[in-house]
Amino acid sequence: MQLFLGIDGGGTGCRAAVADASGRILARAEAGPANIASDLPGAMVNILRAADHALTELGAQPSMVRAGLGLAGANAAGVAEQLAATLPFAVARVVTDAVTAVMGALGEGDGIVAAMGTGSVFGVQRGGVVRQMGGRGLAMGDEGSGAWIGRAILARALRAVDGLEDMTPLLRALIDEAGGDDRVVAYSLTARPADYAALAPRVLTSGDAAAEAVMQAATDHVAAAVAVLQAGQDLPVVFLGGLGPTFAARLAGRWPIRPALGTALDGALRLARRDT
Amino acid sequence: MQLFLGIDGGGTGCRAAVADASGRILARAEAGPANIASDLPGAMVNILRAADHALTELGAQPSMVRAGLGLAGANAAGVAEQLAATLPFAVARVVTDAVTAVMGALGEGDGIVAAMGTGSVFGVQRGGVVRQMGGRGLAMGDEGSGAWIGRAILARALRAVDGLEDMTPLLRALIDEAGGDDRVVAYSLTARPADYAALAPRVLTSGDAAAEAVMQAATDHVAAAVAVLQAGQDLPVVFLGGLGPTFAARLAGRWPIRPALGTALDGALRLARRDT
Repeated sequence: MQLFLGIDGGGTGCRAAVADASGRILARAEAGPANIASDLPGAMVNILRAADHALTELGAQPSMVRAGLGLAGANAAGVAEQLAATLPFAVARVVTDAVTAVMGALGEGDGIVAAMGTGSVFGVQRGGVVRQMGGRGLAMGDEGSGAWIGRAILARALRAVDGLEDMTPLLRALIDEAGGDDRVVAYSLTARPADYAALAPRVLTSGDAAAEAVMQAATDHVAAAVAVLQAGQDLPVVFLGGLGPTFAARLAGRWPIRPALGTALDGALRLARRDT
Repeated sequence: MQLFLGIDGGGTGCRAAVADASGRILARAEAGPANIASDLPGAMVNILRAADHALTELGAQPSMVRAGLGLAGANAAGVAEQLAATLPFAVARVVTDAVTAVMGALGEGDGIVAAMGTGSVFGVQRGGVVRQMGGRGLAMGDEGSGAWIGRAILARALRAVDGLEDMTPLLRALIDEAGGDDRVVAYSLTARPADYAALAPRVLTSGDAAAEAVMQAATDHVAAAVAVLQAGQDLPVVFLGGLGPTFAARLAGRWPIRPALGTALDGALRLARRDT
């Protein structure tokens, strides 16, 4: 019996699933982080650990399976090829976790995915071909993401202190809670994207005029990205991630909005089973 | 004879000058970096070293002088007060190097200063009182600065790859020289403000449409900051820093634009001599 292995690997963990030719899942396993750009050897260990656990249950060998891997960092130059050549599977297809998220969310159909979490990344699937957009990280982009929203509200608070924006209750509260504008600046020198993203829920729910301005700018960025991917079509759009429901609500009516059909792990299994 | 000590301390070095009551400079000295937010003990050592060198020439003791210090990092909460209480001078007034730059550039007159270098900071002087604006660092602001310009052109290049902006020869060249869009993203993960700022001269001189769009956005930020500081007046504006001449040219005719009367060290001496 031909077996198919799907791997969904990211900065917090690595999930494996083994399916038969019909797509029925026979075994699952998990292991530690698998970001191949930031730690290729560590990712390799965790991918093999998760795969071995799942395959051992079935009495199968790695060399018997066709594998699809969606891995954080797979867009870094060269590492996906390097990994694919090293893995012990019969076939190994390595793409970014964004691509498998698109494939899992849309199944076989054409459509667009906006994954809005700490970062933001977009993808379109047409005729089974997936194109990724964005996912550049906070310094270069990640517009509309939780980190982008959190950083934007703090920067706006400082601009309000300087008289460059209207001061609002939320902005005043953020400055005061930090202990003053200088403390906000000090915080920003070491803040990571996840730190900024922790502020996003407060921005979403505050009802403050400054928060609404930041959310409108975020929504405009998301709408612009989706519009480019639509290229004049009216494809269904799936919003993923913690902020997915927020943007789905803000952009309701603009395009057909659909729930995700499956996860990035489902997408990795689709990748493994493709063209067989 | 009453002596006055001026100190101009920043991330690259610390300059001292001693003047008499007429403002005539009697001695000068230099020492290492003096950023009191990032390294207070090290800054303290370099401030005292520069001061001692200048005073020893004149056979003077620190306790004899009234000192004015313009120091990078002096806006960080508490450190200026902590330093002022520790210094061995008869009087020690500690402000940011941005404030002494304003005092040096404008002398006694009312006016506005836009200091446009790797970072950006603005100041207004009215009736001898200086108010600082901006200088929040690249994560939170520094709009229009060299770092802001360099980061903006790279982010725009990635957005052009994604089809979110028009691709231009400069953007294509930046991507190609980096070795691809993934390499630009990798670069951004560790790039410091000075790294981004190193791209600014190329943006200034390229004549590329994308470069002009970034420079126009930068100019709009600078104009907005100056307009808030003008508060409806038509005060003279001094542009400082490596990008000062660029913005002076782009904003010529909007307000009276003047050359700087003196340096931040001159400003520190003015601070030392004030109200005596």
